[in-house]
Amino acid sequence: MTTICVDVMGADKEPEVLLEGVTRALEKDPDLCVLLAGSADVVEPYCASHERARALVTTEVIGMAEHPASAVRQKKDASIVRAAAAVRAGEADGLFSAGSTGAVLTAATFGVGRIKGVKRPALSLPFPGLGSHKTIFLDMGANADVKPEVMVQFAHMGRAFAEVALGVSDARVGLLCNGSEDTKGSEMALAYHEALANGSCGFAGNAEGTDVLGDRFDVIVCDGFTGNVCLKTIEGTGKFVLSRVKAAMKGSLGAKLGAALLAGPLKAMAGELSGAEYGGAILLGLRAPVVKGHGATSAEAVCAGTLSCAAYARANLCEKIAQACEIAG
Amino acid sequence: MTTICVDVMGADKEPEVLLEGVTRALEKDPDLCVLLAGSADVVEPYCASHERARALVTTEVIGMAEHPASAVRQKKDASIVRAAAAVRAGEADGLFSAGSTGAVLTAATFGVGRIKGVKRPALSLPFPGLGSHKTIFLDMGANADVKPEVMVQFAHMGRAFAEVALGVSDARVGLLCNGSEDTKGSEMALAYHEALANGSCGFAGNAEGTDVLGDRFDVIVCDGFTGNVCLKTIEGTGKFVLSRVKAAMKGSLGAKLGAALLAGPLKAMAGELSGAEYGGAILLGLRAPVVKGHGATSAEAVCAGTLSCAAYARANLCEKIAQACEIAG
Repeated sequence: MTTICVDVMGADKEPEVLLEGVTRALEKDPDLCVLLAGSADVVEPYCASHERARALVTTEVIGMAEHPASAVRQKKDASIVRAAAAVRAGEADGLFSAGSTGAVLTAATFGVGRIKGVKRPALSLPFPGLGSHKTIFLDMGANADVKPEVMVQFAHMGRAFAEVALGVSDARVGLLCNGSEDTKGSEMALAYHEALANGSCGFAGNAEGTDVLGDRFDVIVCDGFTGNVCLKTIEGTGKFVLSRVKAAMKGSLGAKLGAALLAGPLKAMAGELSGAEYGGAILLGLRAPVVKGHGATSAEAVCAGTLSCAAYARANLCEKIAQACEIAG
Repeated sequence: MTTICVDVMGADKEPEVLLEGVTRALEKDPDLCVLLAGSADVVEPYCASHERARALVTTEVIGMAEHPASAVRQKKDASIVRAAAAVRAGEADGLFSAGSTGAVLTAATFGVGRIKGVKRPALSLPFPGLGSHKTIFLDMGANADVKPEVMVQFAHMGRAFAEVALGVSDARVGLLCNGSEDTKGSEMALAYHEALANGSCGFAGNAEGTDVLGDRFDVIVCDGFTGNVCLKTIEGTGKFVLSRVKAAMKGSLGAKLGAALLAGPLKAMAGELSGAEYGGAILLGLRAPVVKGHGATSAEAVCAGTLSCAAYARANLCEKIAQACEIAG
């Protein structure tokens, strides 16, 4: 059995939405157990009526608007803090939370702890691409400033994740840059390029923004500043496209019909871009898989996030990352 | 009369495509003259049969694959080099080229020359946004590394461009960042934030990737590394969306019909995103407006680029930038 600790508080949605997601995950995966971190009135009745669910009763919650570091320090009984401690203590094999990104990052990094030798954990997600291609993208925003040697670790962690999540061995790694030529880059990007080229980490050259949803690389690495801008630009472009499709619907009857007929494919695409299949981004580099769902999550996303967290744990993702980082030194 | 020098060589397209665009621009704007830089066999017959067109006969061309700086230095009779020199000599009020970006940037910066006090020219384009909102975006890639005081100049130049291109006075300037809060940012972004906040340049706070095609800011500034990644990410997301719409067309008859009915709006949107209305990006900070069309340009884009270049010249864009940068010191 694999146990995943689910933080059922802290999301923008009611705990009931998270519990519904947990129910779906338990139904789909007979080898899954859950440890539910939340207030007694939420988790105790649920665990009394569901097998394979245990309660981790906590009395505090960290809200979306709180300062992550000070909230994690002060609220020692917050659901995310207790959940991370439970994973560290071996009571669960992984953690899913749809709470505030900063709080999850901070609580998980200090609570679950980093893999020995890993300098900085990084947020990662497999992005959809052209055809059926997928690209592991990191760092999505955990580290605004990244040193060249840390970027090499990102490449190793991304390759281990590509093996587990995509089944790709010997993944081609690209560095997100302002041009595909080796000579392109800011001073920092040129330093990353040099470190990656010497890093024995499958480096295949510079990637461009067009490659993030493309098919030229299996892993694309960048600092979390650039990664966040890229991620939010994809999100904004998606919104823009939908706004124009909606505007077209106010026009001719044909466009209205066209948009209605394409509603299904467009919705599926929005799901692909938001990582719905995986339920959220994973924080790579910690001693157990930690999946961070979107604050405005859904039962489907909670189910997907819990199941993918269990799959990462079973595939020994963290051991693979530890090996890759140990060999790299 | 306003004279725009058009470099009819150096694009990926045949000179005939560029000449067709010039013809359309001359037809639309009775106060426009053109100076056509190109080989004798291309420009002389055209000028013999068109009023308001003069030939600038050149014998060399800089190709897309050449190293920009060395090509500009060595090929003194290249169309883009001669075109820039003609603008500096006062023979034309602006320049349009669809040649290699690097060659146009280098030839224009050294040939046309920077406005006194401007430290670095920047590539800029008005991006479409939600509803009818537009956002001036810079730097799109001319400067991979940017100092904080240069970022403040970008804000001033962007505001002057917003006034001329969008009719927006007192534009709200955003700094592209990895979060909207003032505390977010890489070390460099925090330094930009501080300089902008003290720069009397309409700074309204941090923008996110979602704002680039949004409606919260009139101008968004960033270094050219981030700008290029952002621009190419928009392009890649657009391609990804179209690939999914095409894939959907292979599915149900309904989706096929839907895609066909939406082809018009989707094509219009692709045009909006590529800056078709403006014919290309403008290089801000030079003594005359220089518009850089896409290498794979079209007659429509050449027409639009030539007309917008003339409009910028008539609106005294460069004088406005000079004033803003002089006041800022």
